[in-house]
Amino acid sequence: MMSNNNYGNWIDGKEVAKGEFNYTSFNPIQNKPIQGNFIEATAEEVNFAAACAAKDFMTYSRLSGSRRAEFLQMIATEIEVLGADLILAYCSETGLPEGRAKGELGRTLNQLRLFAEQARINTWQMPSIDLAQPDRSPMPKSDLRKMMLPLGPIAVFGASNFPLAYSTAGGDTASALAVGCPVIVKSHPMHAKTSYMVASAVVRAAQKTQMPSGVFAHLNSKDHQVGQQIAVHQSVKAIGFTGSVKGGRALLDLAAQRPEPIPVFAEMGSVNPVIVFPDKLKHELAQIVTQLSDSIMLGTGQFCTSPGLIFGIDNDDWKLFCTSLAESLAQRDTQCMLHPNIKRGFDTSRESHLSQPEVSVLGTNSNTTNPNQASQTLTRVNAVDFILNPELQHEVFGPFALMISCKDWDELHTALEQLKGNLTGSIMANESSLNAQLNLVNTLQHRVGRLIFNQVPTGVEVCASMQHGGPYPASTDSRFTAVGHDALLRWVRPVSFQNFPESLLPQALQSANPLGLKQRIN
Amino acid sequence: MMSNNNYGNWIDGKEVAKGEFNYTSFNPIQNKPIQGNFIEATAEEVNFAAACAAKDFMTYSRLSGSRRAEFLQMIATEIEVLGADLILAYCSETGLPEGRAKGELGRTLNQLRLFAEQARINTWQMPSIDLAQPDRSPMPKSDLRKMMLPLGPIAVFGASNFPLAYSTAGGDTASALAVGCPVIVKSHPMHAKTSYMVASAVVRAAQKTQMPSGVFAHLNSKDHQVGQQIAVHQSVKAIGFTGSVKGGRALLDLAAQRPEPIPVFAEMGSVNPVIVFPDKLKHELAQIVTQLSDSIMLGTGQFCTSPGLIFGIDNDDWKLFCTSLAESLAQRDTQCMLHPNIKRGFDTSRESHLSQPEVSVLGTNSNTTNPNQASQTLTRVNAVDFILNPELQHEVFGPFALMISCKDWDELHTALEQLKGNLTGSIMANESSLNAQLNLVNTLQHRVGRLIFNQVPTGVEVCASMQHGGPYPASTDSRFTAVGHDALLRWVRPVSFQNFPESLLPQALQSANPLGLKQRIN
Repeated sequence: MMSNNNYGNWIDGKEVAKGEFNYTSFNPIQNKPIQGNFIEATAEEVNFAAACAAKDFMTYSRLSGSRRAEFLQMIATEIEVLGADLILAYCSETGLPEGRAKGELGRTLNQLRLFAEQARINTWQMPSIDLAQPDRSPMPKSDLRKMMLPLGPIAVFGASNFPLAYSTAGGDTASALAVGCPVIVKSHPMHAKTSYMVASAVVRAAQKTQMPSGVFAHLNSKDHQVGQQIAVHQSVKAIGFTGSVKGGRALLDLAAQRPEPIPVFAEMGSVNPVIVFPDKLKHELAQIVTQLSDSIMLGTGQFCTSPGLIFGIDNDDWKLFCTSLAESLAQRDTQCMLHPNIKRGFDTSRESHLSQPEVSVLGTNSNTTNPNQASQTLTRVNAVDFILNPELQHEVFGPFALMISCKDWDELHTALEQLKGNLTGSIMANESSLNAQLNLVNTLQHRVGRLIFNQVPTGVEVCASMQHGGPYPASTDSRFTAVGHDALLRWVRPVSFQNFPESLLPQALQSANPLGLKQRIN
Repeated sequence: MMSNNNYGNWIDGKEVAKGEFNYTSFNPIQNKPIQGNFIEATAEEVNFAAACAAKDFMTYSRLSGSRRAEFLQMIATEIEVLGADLILAYCSETGLPEGRAKGELGRTLNQLRLFAEQARINTWQMPSIDLAQPDRSPMPKSDLRKMMLPLGPIAVFGASNFPLAYSTAGGDTASALAVGCPVIVKSHPMHAKTSYMVASAVVRAAQKTQMPSGVFAHLNSKDHQVGQQIAVHQSVKAIGFTGSVKGGRALLDLAAQRPEPIPVFAEMGSVNPVIVFPDKLKHELAQIVTQLSDSIMLGTGQFCTSPGLIFGIDNDDWKLFCTSLAESLAQRDTQCMLHPNIKRGFDTSRESHLSQPEVSVLGTNSNTTNPNQASQTLTRVNAVDFILNPELQHEVFGPFALMISCKDWDELHTALEQLKGNLTGSIMANESSLNAQLNLVNTLQHRVGRLIFNQVPTGVEVCASMQHGGPYPASTDSRFTAVGHDALLRWVRPVSFQNFPESLLPQALQSANPLGLKQRIN
């Protein structure tokens, strides 16, 4: 903190704030601003942050993996030190309960430690060796070796709905730092204090582990200007973003128009289709109602994996299922959303959805005691109408789902064929009945990043086999993931070394293999 | 052939030609058009090709790897059957010598067989398994498994300078077919006959191995319209391109503006810097002159890896080296370029380069007996001027190189820091002297895709450790390669399967592991 409740930007290891503009964050439960002014970064400060990152890229990227691991471990330690103050800031800026804050904190710390371990063991360098064949005919083959190198400074745009796990020191930042990329974070204005605190922990960790000071910067920003300036800055070599389709697409467009276009991994909108089979409803209707009702309401529906489309074959069980799920949702208390702007967005997209003539409301709860509480809503449409109206695939960010009644398997399959890209696709079925409809799996797998059997889409495991991404608009590049070990692949690229003597090769490529890596040979 | 020397488009396994426009190809040595009319694909035909590819994607992608391997093997066999006729078409359409045609044919056949093997062994599916931990606290962990799936139909834009290895059935097509992606080729108009013949071989191979008919299409096109239509077609899921920065960037921009943006891998311009160390010149000057002179003239300089910038420390040896290389180039016979348009492009960019006030000509050969022959040219500039003038990094496609005289190591290093992205960077040095200047390697490695020690940049090995790509403008996405085993990574994406029973999992992910793949477990 600078003084008088003024919070600056973290650049080159110091807190600076030359800007004229400032903003506050907001407590959605109390429905009032939170004390504390966040000074918007100036154009000059943005340039300085980028220059520091560029200057220190070579030093930072050439540190040993163990040194970078120390840094990441220390970030986790320093965030833990923030303790109850961080949880308090998180809860007051999001309206989310303490349990959620603690859970997300735990995941964030685990994630930092996971990427610390990835940095330490250097496996991401993926060395590949083709030995020379000087006697090959008609032409000799040169010694060729390939490994991954970091891209350079990365810009990270945090998510409104995950102040810790997908933001300041979340998965994008941790994976980029692990492989040797400096990071410039554009703070999310809705959780400015949480972000500021986490950033200060990163800066302290950098100092304690003697990292170059340009390795991390944190820029306050409420308007688009700072984000736009970072996205087109020539020193920035890739972008990580989590948020809306509108925001992600805007960044993608900016990056594509640069003189030197750069990769953008934006994880964006998803309506997460769920297919519920008749045999499942016949035997487990009540259980599935509870599962889906819980999943829709989780985090007030503010999850990128919240189930938004539920498909089924129209019969008596399905009708009962629709009614029961609607009742279950209507009976639950309404919950607070993250911010008045998020609540406004929910209302707008919900209204737009309800204005579609073919949509009917099955259940809702309009009892709100606070203007930031969302009226959870379940609607219904016939598949024939869903197929013809792509508007019905727009995400309503919040506790909202649409039941799609299909007259038979063919119609259900046709509806799935119309689906745009999604993060997840879930199938609730018995094994034998799904085996009789395997074409549904085949169709769905080309439209999602993760297929789920008999579980709900919410809940994203951080592990090597996780794919968190998907065809557009779920993400801007389905070939990468935002979560799990492979998230670092977004920030690296292969470089070949031809005919290099052992002494001049990077350690990962040396035949002596001092790093003890698994080398792909010939 | 349709009739009367009319050549149609290959769509859905048949030759069709409803178009009104046609064009011929050109023999640059004879400096006259070649008999044979290529009927430009109509908008309807383009749509039909895309529809066939989309329709057959599911069938083709679900074939076993062995079946796709048969197809790729058969393509190689059918191309071999074309024999002398193909070599004749190639040489007449390019002006390149028979030896080059045969060499490139051999590489193309090897490449098809390499990707056939990759298809057969299925390693590209990269299965990853995280076993369930039902007793984990605080939350159980679900079984999660991840593997690669093909993206969908791919559009391939062939290269003017590699009618076989980078075009119709070249690396892009072979790698896409290997992983289960149907391919739509936009024929390169400069080698329309060669491309048509190869396409007919692919179609025959598809028929003989009973592939779905939409797996491959080949569209004649001289203007931009066909290419633009394919690039924005909603059924096309990625683009492979080899050619100019202008062409690649135009495709990237089109793809970025689609409602659903898609990945574009364009391999584009490169000036392939070479750094020659003083100690090397002191002892091996004549040898390096020959190596570089050969490399500059190879294929009339029409290689993406042709050396275009040569850096050295200005001393007496360097001055002698400049003079000797200039003499060597001036004494060689001028050679024919691929096409009058390529020759015009060479002349224009050469003139533009020579018009820079700080550039002087060291040597050239103006003796041409044919308007399509290029005057190989060596120029010179002081590093201080090179550093200030980014125009001097523009590729002059053809036999052309610029010597950059640096007053000391610092200036050389500063010049390297200004470099844009390149496919390759070469260093000619003794091991010990390079060890004393390691910062040059460190700087260069972040600006190129392949670092080369004491060899010339021309000559691209097709193997697992090859990286053929690089930071922009060498390619549109430095994280991928156009050549070698990993070229197929451009066309696949990971998909996770959560909580799926063994019987419903794809073979690659089954614990029984029927494909015998290396599975990454936990």
